Parts: sequence; structure tokens; C-alpha cells
Amino acid sequence: MKIYDWHTGPYPARVRIALAEKGLGSCVRFESVDLRKGEHKTAGFRAKNYSGTLPVLELDDGTFIAECTAITEYLDALDGTPILTGGTPRERGVIHMMSKRAELELLDAVSVYFHHATPGLGPDVEIYQNADWGLRQRDKAISGMRYFDGVLRLQEFVAGDSFSMADITVIGGLIFAELVKLPVPADCNALLAWYTRMQERPSVRNRVTMSNVVEAST
Amino acid sequence: MKIYDWHTGPYPARVRIALAEKGLGSCVRFESVDLRKGEHKTAGFRAKNYSGTLPVLELDDGTFIAECTAITEYLDALDGTPILTGGTPRERGVIHMMSKRAELELLDAVSVYFHHATPGLGPDVEIYQNADWGLRQRDKAISGMRYFDGVLRLQEFVAGDSFSMADITVIGGLIFAELVKLPVPADCNALLAWYTRMQERPSVRNRVTMSNVVEAST
Repeated sequence: MKIYDWHTGPYPARVRIALAEKGLGSCVRFESVDLRKGEHKTAGFRAKNYSGTLPVLELDDGTFIAECTAITEYLDALDGTPILTGGTPRERGVIHMMSKRAELELLDAVSVYFHHATPGLGPDVEIYQNADWGLRQRDKAISGMRYFDGVLRLQEFVAGDSFSMADITVIGGLIFAELVKLPVPADCNALLAWYTRMQERPSVRNRVTMSNVVEAST
Repeated sequence: MKIYDWHTGPYPARVRIALAEKGLGSCVRFESVDLRKGEHKTAGFRAKNYSGTLPVLELDDGTFIAECTAITEYLDALDGTPILTGGTPRERGVIHMMSKRAELELLDAVSVYFHHATPGLGPDVEIYQNADWGLRQRDKAISGMRYFDGVLRLQEFVAGDSFSMADITVIGGLIFAELVKLPVPADCNALLAWYTRMQERPSVRNRVTMSNVVEAST
């Protein structure tokens, strides 16, 4: 399998964490697509992923799977033992809901803020910006942090008692928030404590140097 | 189970179609949440779904599951025989990718156009509008129609050889496009022919009157 990604990207991080949690790091090769040069917006890359986003998984049969949730579903189903997307119908429903909510209310909101109300990836890549929309999304992301803080006051993980894809999506949101200097409000104690715990997981801690880690261990 | 929805809503349609495809129509009660009055934006409803969107599924144990993909995952897993979200890892990955792409490039884009560049649900509900963003999303949706037309020139269904959640999401997009008078370009023959076939499915044809259909058959 091959992953097209960018090593420090927040969305690529979601798949790198999923790969490590599933013990699949040694099964993939990484190919860099330079976000800063807009390589993900070229016609060549859009033939792999119409939406022009990273990451993309290429299977050995040539199938391209884009979108983090879809890639995570694929990886999690490979061994018949889903640990990230849930086992029971209720777990599947709640994990997918919380992961989508983490996209809508946090990760995607930070992304829109970055691309529309900051210089983003620079003028060659950001050919249309809408600052007012971007600033609204920044405020939405801060509200989203407060929402997830409330969730994590009541339970250990984003979707309940176990680590799941939903935690990974919130981690992606906080990685992006750090990049754009959008700090978690200091009174979000539960969210901050959870994030400290998450960063102790090897899958999260080693994500950027993942391919090196894999090379060292194989 | 209870579904909070609005009978003509494009997102609610996705879950109504999924329920009918799974033969679960008689297992649910519907409770109307009047979009035109903004009932989905009240604090009471946001306690059920933080994002303030329809539909929401309430399980008998009191769990709320929001987000169409999450609800579809739950419903599809109930009988252990997923027919909408895929059986193999590759099917799961491709279906989730194509469904997410149908949201990003079509359904959600039409929704943003409606809420931001038309009167939407009226001034009491649309308390912030960004017309420029809305018009960009309208253009994106038209491009998305052309993309899915290209997909359907090569295969019978949106994610391959079988009807799936991805078809349902594109159907949701075209339902919303009709509501906002955003016609499919006339040269999108494959998309138009596919949509005609889709409307012949009882799950799609009877979706608005679903609760009546259920009452008549039980």
C-alpha cells in the first residue's frame, strides 16, 4: 500500500495514527505531496482524488481511497478486528457521529480558518479567500473545543470508554489548532488533560517520523 | 427507535431511504422538528445534537445518534448483513470515500448555497449569511454534478456495481438541488439516467410519506 501525504499535515496525521494503532506501519510506503507548492491541487493529483486533499491511500490493485474516515474504515476492517470504528452497531454509530462532529466543529473549522483568514499555504495556492467566513469558523472551532471539553469531563475518550477514530479526529483538530496558533482555552481542563494522555500514545508521539520508525524496526 | 426529522428535508431523506432499504421502516417513530421555525437550532434540540442539524436517531436506551453516515452505519450493522456500507474492507473504504465526496462536492455545497446565497429558512433562522461563499459553493455543486456524471458513465452505481450509502448521499444532493432550483446540467446524461433509475426504487419514491406507508402495511 502507498500513502500520499505530507508528514506534518493534520489530516495525514489521522491516517498515520490509525496505521500505527493497527500495527500496519510497515505495510505502507509514504510519498510526499508538497502542500506548500500546491501539489495536491494539480490535475495529476486530482485524478487520484477529485477533491484535491491529502491523504490518499493507494491499494496494490491501483484503487485510490481518499478521505480519512474512509481510509480508517479500510485499515480497521483489514484484520476483521475493528478497534477504531467500533464493534457493535451502537459503537459504530456513536464513533462515526463523534468523529464527524469533530470534523465539523473543530478540525474542518480550523482548516477553513487557516485557508481563508490567514495567509494559509500562500498566494499561489490560496487563490480564493473569504476572511469573514474564515473568522466565523475560527470562533466555531473554539466553541467546538469547549464542547469536547464538556464531553471529556464525563468520559475518558471522545466516543466513550475506549480510544477510537473519534479521538484521532479531535487530535487532528488540536494538531491543526497548534499550527495556526489557536490555543485551547485554559479552562478546558478535561480536554487539555485528555490531549496530554493522547500525546503519550506512541501512535501520536511518533507520527511525523513514522516512516523512519518503521525502517528502524524492520 | 425514534427519528427526529423533517419530512421533506434532503438530509432526513438519506436516513428514510436507508431505513426502507433495510426494511426497518416499521421499527421507528418519526417526530417532526420544524426547520422553517428553526426548531433544530434551539437549546433543547442542541442537547440532543450539538450541531443543531437533522436527522437524529434516538435509541431505546436514550442514546442520540446524529449525522446521516453515523445513523446509516448503525442501521446497516443491526442485522449483521451490511448492504449499504460494504462487506469487504475495500468496499467499506470506497463507499465511505464516495459518500463523503458526495457530501463535500454536492450535498453540503448545495446546502451552503441555500443557507447563504438564498433566503434559506428565512431571516429568523439565517442569522448569518455569506453570499459570496454561498455562490462559490453553488458553482462547486455544479462541478460536483459533472464529476458524478463522469463516475456514472463508467459504472452503474456511485461506488461501483451495487447500490450503497454513496448513492443515497448523491440522491440527497439532487433532492436538495431540486428544492433550490439548481438543475443538473442537461448534458449530464449518465447522472440523469442514474437518477431516473434511483427514483424507481420504492425507498426513494415513497420517502416523504414513509410513516404513512409503514402504517398502511402494519
